[in-house]
Amino acid sequence: MTDTLRLGIAGLGTVGVGVVRIIRQKAPLLEARTGRKIEISAVSARTRDKDRGVALQSYGWEDDPVALATRDDVDVFVELMGGSDGPAKAATEAALNAGKDVVTANKAMLALHGQALAELAESKGCALRYEAAVAGGIPVIKALTEGLAGNEITRVLGVMNGTCNYILTRMQDAGLPYEDVFEEANQLGYLEADPTLDVGGIDAAHKLAILSSIAFGTRVDFDGIEIEGIERVTIDDIRHADDMGYRIKLLGVAQKSGRGLEQRMMPCLVPAGSPLGVLQGGTNMVVIEGHAVEQVVLRGPGAGEGPTASAVIGDVCDIARGLRLPVFGQRAETLQEAPAARSVLPAPYYLRMGLTDKPGALAKVAAVLGEAGVSIDRMRQREHTGDVATVIIVTHKTTRTALDEALTAMAATGVVQELPVALRIEAL
Amino acid sequence: MTDTLRLGIAGLGTVGVGVVRIIRQKAPLLEARTGRKIEISAVSARTRDKDRGVALQSYGWEDDPVALATRDDVDVFVELMGGSDGPAKAATEAALNAGKDVVTANKAMLALHGQALAELAESKGCALRYEAAVAGGIPVIKALTEGLAGNEITRVLGVMNGTCNYILTRMQDAGLPYEDVFEEANQLGYLEADPTLDVGGIDAAHKLAILSSIAFGTRVDFDGIEIEGIERVTIDDIRHADDMGYRIKLLGVAQKSGRGLEQRMMPCLVPAGSPLGVLQGGTNMVVIEGHAVEQVVLRGPGAGEGPTASAVIGDVCDIARGLRLPVFGQRAETLQEAPAARSVLPAPYYLRMGLTDKPGALAKVAAVLGEAGVSIDRMRQREHTGDVATVIIVTHKTTRTALDEALTAMAATGVVQELPVALRIEAL
Repeated sequence: MTDTLRLGIAGLGTVGVGVVRIIRQKAPLLEARTGRKIEISAVSARTRDKDRGVALQSYGWEDDPVALATRDDVDVFVELMGGSDGPAKAATEAALNAGKDVVTANKAMLALHGQALAELAESKGCALRYEAAVAGGIPVIKALTEGLAGNEITRVLGVMNGTCNYILTRMQDAGLPYEDVFEEANQLGYLEADPTLDVGGIDAAHKLAILSSIAFGTRVDFDGIEIEGIERVTIDDIRHADDMGYRIKLLGVAQKSGRGLEQRMMPCLVPAGSPLGVLQGGTNMVVIEGHAVEQVVLRGPGAGEGPTASAVIGDVCDIARGLRLPVFGQRAETLQEAPAARSVLPAPYYLRMGLTDKPGALAKVAAVLGEAGVSIDRMRQREHTGDVATVIIVTHKTTRTALDEALTAMAATGVVQELPVALRIEAL
Repeated sequence: MTDTLRLGIAGLGTVGVGVVRIIRQKAPLLEARTGRKIEISAVSARTRDKDRGVALQSYGWEDDPVALATRDDVDVFVELMGGSDGPAKAATEAALNAGKDVVTANKAMLALHGQALAELAESKGCALRYEAAVAGGIPVIKALTEGLAGNEITRVLGVMNGTCNYILTRMQDAGLPYEDVFEEANQLGYLEADPTLDVGGIDAAHKLAILSSIAFGTRVDFDGIEIEGIERVTIDDIRHADDMGYRIKLLGVAQKSGRGLEQRMMPCLVPAGSPLGVLQGGTNMVVIEGHAVEQVVLRGPGAGEGPTASAVIGDVCDIARGLRLPVFGQRAETLQEAPAARSVLPAPYYLRMGLTDKPGALAKVAAVLGEAGVSIDRMRQREHTGDVATVIIVTHKTTRTALDEALTAMAATGVVQELPVALRIEAL
């Protein structure tokens, strides 16, 4: 181990600047904790001449991140460019092939290419670390991979996209419709360039894919995730849920059932008073359940310069201290291919539908549910709008298959005005 | 690194049995994650012939934990006996002197002898790990030492004694007085043999001393902690606090001020809706605040077979994976001696006092507070009992010094019937 650990940082957006700032401002602290000096050799970004509010003159510059990744004076390549493919992936591969350790915040790259990258890193004896890729400042990768390594993990769930949680809690608190709050979030700069990544659940699903792999010893399987965004959640749904003691969250859940690995990222109802239920604004939360530890809940800022940089530096410190771990907690070639199971595990569901306001309509719906074996826990008929009455039903535990059967049969009755909204109620 | 990591486990109480169970039941999982077999060579406990519900025949037996700690077939000595001195300390020292790694759950030993043990471990190149010593199953030592290593920590606080939190939340929920709930906790077996360790705040203070050391790079200083137990908290205090939107928690707080390291373990008021405020029963919570990460909150079971064993096994897995870290996050000889500062940082306070029910009494109290520079935010006069009226005052931010001055002057007025209860209101 050399005395100094030398970084090459690619990407000088918010997070990159945050990392540079910590390295510059907290050098003595980092040296005390790791026993080594941590320095930046060179950096790379799309434009060189831009005031980023932090002094970069003393570092080398590379226009090409691949050139940065393979410099002789770089021990650790820090990839903060983003994008699942393109330069980020090329430079990460180049770094690993050159025997450099890599720290990245790139959830999309890991969710889509995690297996190949892990195999490459492990074949080269390099570290590939990504604490910043999931839940910002929360050290959840470390908790799952190391702190809870003695557990057979039974479920991982959480709120992993701060923008969606901001939108949902703001709708609830201000009583505003989705479209208004979406626009507000846009104005505040909370949304990705392609907002579908946020509100469509894709970004959060990338994170879930990574957590699932570590938790269950399976290959990262982004395609196996059932994804549903928050676009169809209305202020009425939020109010109905509230009346019944629930909050609506974009919730990621991964658990193993007899049929395979179940990964869902979709709006769900959670108890209002539960740790997830009380989660406000852009904060993230991950709940890890294991056979021994029962339940551990981790909560913290899901994004932002400081928190994300904190996670990147945590990884850098681990590398400086000589920590070497398999990328997903066990060697990549031992990770299993688990078949993707679609909502096999039963749960109660919240249903909202518009019913033709005619005698017998409700009875037809109830009959259809009964025939599919879906039993009703609570039902409320709410306000009428013209000829349509909104009906809210909470079912007893049922499988998604039975529910889908009922929803199809319901459409055939002719009394349901629109595609019912069906949200799972997740137990906590 | 040998293929197999061999443990010697001293102490076969709840936690010891939990550790044996995980090693036996999850062997393939642990091997997949660490790349090594983890086996038990021998065990030790006070009595050999006792049915502990787990098969121990295949392991060696030692009556003397020191003999266990130094066996040739033991790589890691797992100390689960407890007690700050005596056999636990002797065996830990023997293990380190023999070049063995040590995993312990012993908060008292670390709080009182942490510096010497860390120096010994580091001089021998051995690991000394203690995740289970603080907050049971929550991987908080790891989060603080590793995950958040890029942060200058600004404050660590939390609820670290499940029994006290059980008592306080049960008082609140059932409306029962302290004495009744204390007796109930006793019947349920929640209290230590010496209950002062729990309700007197000692056990939680041991844990805080350990967290402070890691957070601030200071030598463990248990004696520098201001400790106050929950024995004087009444059901009335809980109700008054509730009325004002607060909960009372036995709260540990460590932060650095210009005057030194401030460590407090005492009943405090926290906002009812905050993560700490909503914490129920025996659950623990640690809040870590750092210059970059802002705030991370960790929550989980603070005790019990599974959760504590989970923490022990996490440490064992780290050792199996070759992780070597300084015991308190930086080398023991670099840890500073920080002067202990007593509540230097100002805060609002909750005061409860019994006032002689005479004209002018309240004015006298208000005058005394004003003279000491303590200004009143809210004041309520509550129910009379005989000639005594209970008065609740919430002050604006003040130093403990100014407050103590006021309390002394108050006693001299002759209108205050008993020593006022003064509880800090901790901002979150």
